[in-house]
Amino acid sequence: MSDTTGKVIKCKAAVCWAAGEPLKIEEVEVAPPRAHEVRIRILYTALESRTVQVESVGEGVTSVKVGDHVIPLYTAECRECKFCKSGKTNLCGAVRATQGQGLMPDKSVRFTCKGQPIHHFMGTSTFSQYTVVADVSVVAVNPKAPLNRVCLLGCGITTAWGAVVKQPGIKGSSVAVFGCGAIGLGVVATSALVGASRIIAIDMNPAKEEWALKFGATDFINPSKLPEGKKIQDFLVEYTDGGLDYTFDCTGNVHVMRAALEACHKGWGVSTIIGVAAAGQEISTRPFQLVTGRVWRGSAFGGVKGRTELPGLVEDYLQGKVKIDEYVTHNRTLAEINEGFDDMHGGNCIRCIVDMTS
Amino acid sequence: MSDTTGKVIKCKAAVCWAAGEPLKIEEVEVAPPRAHEVRIRILYTALESRTVQVESVGEGVTSVKVGDHVIPLYTAECRECKFCKSGKTNLCGAVRATQGQGLMPDKSVRFTCKGQPIHHFMGTSTFSQYTVVADVSVVAVNPKAPLNRVCLLGCGITTAWGAVVKQPGIKGSSVAVFGCGAIGLGVVATSALVGASRIIAIDMNPAKEEWALKFGATDFINPSKLPEGKKIQDFLVEYTDGGLDYTFDCTGNVHVMRAALEACHKGWGVSTIIGVAAAGQEISTRPFQLVTGRVWRGSAFGGVKGRTELPGLVEDYLQGKVKIDEYVTHNRTLAEINEGFDDMHGGNCIRCIVDMTS
Repeated sequence: MSDTTGKVIKCKAAVCWAAGEPLKIEEVEVAPPRAHEVRIRILYTALESRTVQVESVGEGVTSVKVGDHVIPLYTAECRECKFCKSGKTNLCGAVRATQGQGLMPDKSVRFTCKGQPIHHFMGTSTFSQYTVVADVSVVAVNPKAPLNRVCLLGCGITTAWGAVVKQPGIKGSSVAVFGCGAIGLGVVATSALVGASRIIAIDMNPAKEEWALKFGATDFINPSKLPEGKKIQDFLVEYTDGGLDYTFDCTGNVHVMRAALEACHKGWGVSTIIGVAAAGQEISTRPFQLVTGRVWRGSAFGGVKGRTELPGLVEDYLQGKVKIDEYVTHNRTLAEINEGFDDMHGGNCIRCIVDMTS
Repeated sequence: MSDTTGKVIKCKAAVCWAAGEPLKIEEVEVAPPRAHEVRIRILYTALESRTVQVESVGEGVTSVKVGDHVIPLYTAECRECKFCKSGKTNLCGAVRATQGQGLMPDKSVRFTCKGQPIHHFMGTSTFSQYTVVADVSVVAVNPKAPLNRVCLLGCGITTAWGAVVKQPGIKGSSVAVFGCGAIGLGVVATSALVGASRIIAIDMNPAKEEWALKFGATDFINPSKLPEGKKIQDFLVEYTDGGLDYTFDCTGNVHVMRAALEACHKGWGVSTIIGVAAAGQEISTRPFQLVTGRVWRGSAFGGVKGRTELPGLVEDYLQGKVKIDEYVTHNRTLAEINEGFDDMHGGNCIRCIVDMTS
């Protein structure tokens, strides 16, 4: 046990005081973990994922121990709910309702700042040097793995990896990947890993061509360079003599989601939505697209069960089977976290690692 | 060979002279079959399917012979195209382009009436006492099967049967069926046949409750009787504690298609569109529905390969495994074909058989 066990910890965190405002670096108080909770020290965060070390554990925690290197999970895995037991999905129901409200499972919070309670974020709250998470929302991984790299397995790379490896049939098939951010590049890389015969990467940013080819794409298409009025889906159906076996939307744009579906081959094409759309937006298509054999599906956190599967993915990384290092283009300190978000929106950044210790 | 072989046959047909107009009974001339074509006598048609006897065959036809009892197929099966060879779909590409244009594969027509060429319809043109179809668009079946019954396997019942038996996982699962026409009742019956644990039938017409329960539904819901403003999908998610494992749209209404998707259980629910929507209509939903694990797919002719699978389905009928007789509520003569369509639209008709010989 560390000497902070059971005590309130004061540390720095990037706090969101109001929607749309930049994060503000504040001193926050982090309460000790209660039953089935874990307090962890955040070492690196990837502006969407993170790696951490366990500082102390609450009563009844058996799955991790003090000092473990862990990855917090925004998609929990309790192994006891209807969803976990179904064997059909990774969408654990255990902490979902409270997580969505920014609360711990007992409906309280562990953060205060300037006397005010501060909400948790996505069940993990990793923009703080210390945080408290439910024990079903954290997994220990091999301590030999560098923390400033495996933090990327907390979201994007795992999402992309899972969306491909859990989709049967990609070996020997044609794939189109819409959007070449970290997720899209992860889908390209994993499609190459499992043996897709053709991998067409699509992005409006010409700088992404080099990235896509480096990650394993066989073709790169920039939709903004098509003839006036030519839809990307119509182009791809002609370009591939009927359409793709598998497509992936990695943009979050509902119009691109439609294009990804309609670029699928009649009779068997499967389109997977990975990107997250803005609130209230809807996808649409003619039902004929589905009746003639295309399948529209989606994937959250790649269908990966975090506690069960992330330790193995870390091993895959250590053995050189899964890329992580290649995604890191930028590094920032906690004080620079807002600049890190600007990096991410800038188009020449794939992933930015924030050193939370500095 | 019959004595009409090689000659033009004059017979009666219900001709559509203009979109939206009632069919008109006319005398038409039916030209002999060319290479790889089959001329057949229509005995019974089910206002969407039909049974027939082969009158003569063109050069090169080996799959059926004169006198065979056959079912014409609006979804051909050539066994040679990319689609047939894929093993993934029943959507044969062989005659699709010409069929869509109302032509035979050689881009000509076999019908004339009052000196004018008459287009074919859906590759089969069964509202005529004689018709000509491509040899890939017809399959011989057991002659012991009554022709005024197995004609129903040419479309709706087979569509419903295939949509269920080709969907893995229905045994032991919950199913909701939107729309209790012949297709919906076929989905109910086949779900019961394969062992679904719960089958909820949904229709606005209260008279369909008795039908649905007779075909194997465990529950019947009339959406028009829900509390004001309550959406059927929200009701069903509550009623089933999370949603259905499988849903089927058998209405062709795009709003119902959305409800069927959204009534699916998070994490694993699969919704299949069977109904055909009006031209230009679109389906829509929030992408979150798919990202959280629902799958949206469709089915045409139930995914059934007509030449390969219909003979077995006829045997299943003869052995009492597949219902057909139970769907027939009305019988008409060719002269009454428009009244038959009125029957179909009337709501108390499941299927109407037209005796083409009378």
